[in-house]
Amino acid sequence: MAIDFWFAIGSTYTYFPVMRLDTVEAETGIHFNWRPFNLRKVLLAMNSIPFADKPAKLAYMWRDIERRAAAFGLSVSMPPPYTITDAERANRIALLGLKEGWGKAYIRASYRRWFAEGQDAGAEPNFVASLREAGQDPDATLARADTAEAAEALDRATDEAVALGLFGAPNFVVGDEVFWGHDRLDDAIAWHRYKG
Amino acid sequence: MAIDFWFAIGSTYTYFPVMRLDTVEAETGIHFNWRPFNLRKVLLAMNSIPFADKPAKLAYMWRDIERRAAAFGLSVSMPPPYTITDAERANRIALLGLKEGWGKAYIRASYRRWFAEGQDAGAEPNFVASLREAGQDPDATLARADTAEAAEALDRATDEAVALGLFGAPNFVVGDEVFWGHDRLDDAIAWHRYKG
Repeated sequence: MAIDFWFAIGSTYTYFPVMRLDTVEAETGIHFNWRPFNLRKVLLAMNSIPFADKPAKLAYMWRDIERRAAAFGLSVSMPPPYTITDAERANRIALLGLKEGWGKAYIRASYRRWFAEGQDAGAEPNFVASLREAGQDPDATLARADTAEAAEALDRATDEAVALGLFGAPNFVVGDEVFWGHDRLDDAIAWHRYKG
Repeated sequence: MAIDFWFAIGSTYTYFPVMRLDTVEAETGIHFNWRPFNLRKVLLAMNSIPFADKPAKLAYMWRDIERRAAAFGLSVSMPPPYTITDAERANRIALLGLKEGWGKAYIRASYRRWFAEGQDAGAEPNFVASLREAGQDPDATLARADTAEAAEALDRATDEAVALGLFGAPNFVVGDEVFWGHDRLDDAIAWHRYKG
């Protein structure tokens, strides 16, 4: 059984699993199934604003991410733009890319540009540059990511996420057992081993 | 240098450090300085409702607490009453008790009754029963906890908490470095060792 990695581009703490999961996969032998969803839609439906209107919590989040990034050897140029502009489009691209095989390369490029270079992950030049970095033709790919079909695929994934009870990101889901937060990855792995 | 343990009775995840910190203190040799504050006042000022109006997040929290409690060997009767009724009074009692030397016994009794027996930590019979368990005369103690002086002491602690940037509980503070969440205790200990 794989662990489902449910995430959304636009979630700050998702930076860590995006950059680390391939290593974790190699170390543990557990397959992670990457599942983007439209977290912003879920938050709007819950009337939830995790950080953006809470200055003390936002300041803490950046400090915490700075400390964690240092511990993981990851670059962060503080603070990255937040919130990102068009998170829905970013996640439509990610979902399409995961279906077509270039998704992880796109998502990693997008996060690196967002966190290390200060480029909004939901706007240009990030979309085009990260698609190029993932080996894709930007115009043709964005045209496919902007179809009604791509929007419906993201909506279906988001319905699945809501059915699982997700309300934030990142999440690691083992069967129907949800572990929310990048710092619950070890718990999810332990649960996977216990149930596996 | 001690680690300041900033918390509020009424915070669910505070159950874990309340029950575990004396053991951690014995194992690490690090002193923890218990600092109750009026978290509800801080949340109201931020217009923040962490869980109570978010059913999916609330359901996740209880499941997460259930898993963690099992891992720590702690009892939980699910779900404990939430939110608690008079959190301010509970924290006035806690602050008074810590000044007078019976605070930890009161706080532990209050959480045990709340989590293991389903007794609201901000109402009777919890107040009186936990005071008795801590060896105090309930009527005389509640009279001292209900004075303007006790209210002012809690307000001053709360002002300090806000000045530190606190917005939730529990927190572990090393100098001015804040670690929020019971799962950041190990990070706070590592930071304390690094800076100590």
